[in-house]
Amino acid sequence: MSIKPRVVIIGGGFGGLWAAKALANKPVEVTLIDRKNHHVFQPLLYQVATAVLSPGEIATPIRRIIHHAKNTEVILGEVTGFDTENKKVILDDGTEVAFDYLIVAAGARHAYFGHDDWETSAPGLKTIEDAVEIRRRVLLAFELAERDAYLKGTRRSLNFVIVGGGPTGVELAGAIAGIARQALAKDFMAIDTRDAHVVLFEGSDRVLGTFARDLSESAKSQLEDLGVEVRLNSFVTDIAPGKVKVGEDWIGCDVVLWATGVAASPIGKKLGVATDKAGRVFVEPDLTIPGHKNIFVIGDMASLKQENGEPVPGVSPAAMQMGAATADNILADLKAKDRKNFRYVDKGTMATIGRSKAIADVQGFHFKGFIAWMMWLFLHVFFLIGFRNRIIVLLEWFWAYLTRERSARLITGDANELKNALAFLEGEDAVVAEMQKREEAKQVAR
Amino acid sequence: MSIKPRVVIIGGGFGGLWAAKALANKPVEVTLIDRKNHHVFQPLLYQVATAVLSPGEIATPIRRIIHHAKNTEVILGEVTGFDTENKKVILDDGTEVAFDYLIVAAGARHAYFGHDDWETSAPGLKTIEDAVEIRRRVLLAFELAERDAYLKGTRRSLNFVIVGGGPTGVELAGAIAGIARQALAKDFMAIDTRDAHVVLFEGSDRVLGTFARDLSESAKSQLEDLGVEVRLNSFVTDIAPGKVKVGEDWIGCDVVLWATGVAASPIGKKLGVATDKAGRVFVEPDLTIPGHKNIFVIGDMASLKQENGEPVPGVSPAAMQMGAATADNILADLKAKDRKNFRYVDKGTMATIGRSKAIADVQGFHFKGFIAWMMWLFLHVFFLIGFRNRIIVLLEWFWAYLTRERSARLITGDANELKNALAFLEGEDAVVAEMQKREEAKQVAR
Repeated sequence: MSIKPRVVIIGGGFGGLWAAKALANKPVEVTLIDRKNHHVFQPLLYQVATAVLSPGEIATPIRRIIHHAKNTEVILGEVTGFDTENKKVILDDGTEVAFDYLIVAAGARHAYFGHDDWETSAPGLKTIEDAVEIRRRVLLAFELAERDAYLKGTRRSLNFVIVGGGPTGVELAGAIAGIARQALAKDFMAIDTRDAHVVLFEGSDRVLGTFARDLSESAKSQLEDLGVEVRLNSFVTDIAPGKVKVGEDWIGCDVVLWATGVAASPIGKKLGVATDKAGRVFVEPDLTIPGHKNIFVIGDMASLKQENGEPVPGVSPAAMQMGAATADNILADLKAKDRKNFRYVDKGTMATIGRSKAIADVQGFHFKGFIAWMMWLFLHVFFLIGFRNRIIVLLEWFWAYLTRERSARLITGDANELKNALAFLEGEDAVVAEMQKREEAKQVAR
Repeated sequence: MSIKPRVVIIGGGFGGLWAAKALANKPVEVTLIDRKNHHVFQPLLYQVATAVLSPGEIATPIRRIIHHAKNTEVILGEVTGFDTENKKVILDDGTEVAFDYLIVAAGARHAYFGHDDWETSAPGLKTIEDAVEIRRRVLLAFELAERDAYLKGTRRSLNFVIVGGGPTGVELAGAIAGIARQALAKDFMAIDTRDAHVVLFEGSDRVLGTFARDLSESAKSQLEDLGVEVRLNSFVTDIAPGKVKVGEDWIGCDVVLWATGVAASPIGKKLGVATDKAGRVFVEPDLTIPGHKNIFVIGDMASLKQENGEPVPGVSPAAMQMGAATADNILADLKAKDRKNFRYVDKGTMATIGRSKAIADVQGFHFKGFIAWMMWLFLHVFFLIGFRNRIIVLLEWFWAYLTRERSARLITGDANELKNALAFLEGEDAVVAEMQKREEAKQVAR
């Protein structure tokens, strides 16, 4: 028992989980550490944020997913540092966890380009909590507009702003337009939810910039079909409660969502090796860090150039492939075989935009609209973790497709947030200050 | 249009919603006001708290449920007072809503018998937020025990305490025992979750005291079959972080859940009429308040004696019947017909205890165990709001029955609560003080 090398994996996302799966019941002892008890199927997170799916339908307890792995222990914990020389991981309560091999796969968040204070006003979408918060804000905006229109007769415009035209931004913009135009339209009386205005700001000259140009253009026109206003070459330069500044103009809005920038987990910097501007760790071709053949960094935290000079993209297939490749290299070590350098295999990329709307690029073949959307649908159900979740999600989608409804339209959270939200939209200084104080109190308590 | 009388309903629970349903598309204008956007199917709330179902599966947007009612407007808002003479409801932002008829159906919460400070340590189960918080605490207790056992080799006992042997307490105790014994057992390696100790404290000499004595006794032995320790004639006299005082003894515990006492919504007292000790409004036989034939109080907020001298019980069928009866009386007024006095029709009562375990009393016929459980199952799916939810819930239950698993095992919330929770269990004074400060900050912000 004790002679088996110990592999510690940090993070139960696609990278860490796929490494753990590949090491299951192999001659190693595995400890997987995550801050959360659940793996999130990130590609469907925007569907929780837009009330199609419930959190439990896209998240599964990590220990449940790999409970067949008798050599794997899952620990809820937060890693705060490393002792790379003595091969130890340090947790937030000071506990040390020894390793022979370490796989760091703690992912990334959105970057606010030095304006972390914007996050309160413009949340990003990386966790279940983010998704529930975005859902709350989006649904609340409609409720408050209805309330004002009914009780006060005021008729204000409903504005949703999404910053960033990558996959997440496009998905959110399309889904919110879909909610406003279809799912909610019949349920509101004092307002016409179809009047809601969804604007997507993108700094470059096209959305989905990692795709071929014809697909980007198709995505833009598919978004416009849904009623989304796409504004290219537009930089958001400031954000305040209830408004965003684009170039020199302030634009009033009910909800701002942030979907741009990458900030790798800050624990990457604790490894003591070079990182890029986004905090990603420069890794060797075998995904290890310089000087430590036993420490791997994978997924969104890793910075690696492919043979063609392009960086490996920060997408889930790359993370899964890195996880599996790392496991293979560790097992190769144990058999005294040579390690293999990591090669990313691009099996195709796709992005969904809305009902019957998507784009896909598979080995150079370009698909647009309904056919791309069907491909997206099947692929995502297929990859969704857990047999049960697949059935439930299929059923939810089938229901949503038939009825054009959203089934998870819950506004949860502090009952008294309503008053604050209302004031927030109206920019009442006192309440805004109070909310900030509250945020600070939370920070202190952390 | 304007000559139609306006009915304002406060609360979208069973009482308010059934009133709204009965008034749908009738010659009245209806405004339904609720603090939340969703109706919660309360009888299944304990299944969210114990990770069987997701919040979205038992909660539906109120405006969705009655969107076929063209005369009904749903408003998200918090009622803070009344001007009964001028027939107005006052919202928290000062807005007034005029009514011709008023139906107050704002429900009840658990009462802490003058110790509201216990709520932080011992949450009750009335809202989706409560359920998610209880789920978090229950699952976190197992995770922390596993972590301690694995990292530190400490082997401490896992104690779950439920205060109150009514239906909610019995459901929670049975379900937590079920989790520990079946759902989690295979997923933990360092601890044996089956060692977890679930204790139910009940002040009287039997559980489910509103049922016949033989059913109470059956319920107790069914609970014991599941491994729950049932302690009757036991009063909890104090609660502090990580421990409860029963009689003179302090008992250490990981999670305390509160399931006793009734405190009607405080807005009942704002009506200016007599209330009982629990804050319930004494109503006339037609459910109106003395002196105001146009103001009805129904559901858990109403105190009314039946002809046999027994009070109408605070159960969902009574609330539904009151809602429908009130709507009928309002419509009778409009046709200048006589009102009818409310009569509660007891179609049978049941309580569920766990897998294949329940009791039921239908017109004096007593059912116990599997047959009672099947009755409970079909009745609850039948009454669950929304066709889609019924299918999803059936599927979830079928899956849970087959596999003995729980599918909604998510620990959500502030990522940094982990450290606090750990310290909380260990009773670290500094962190406890910090948590209290945070709670207070929240209160202030409210």
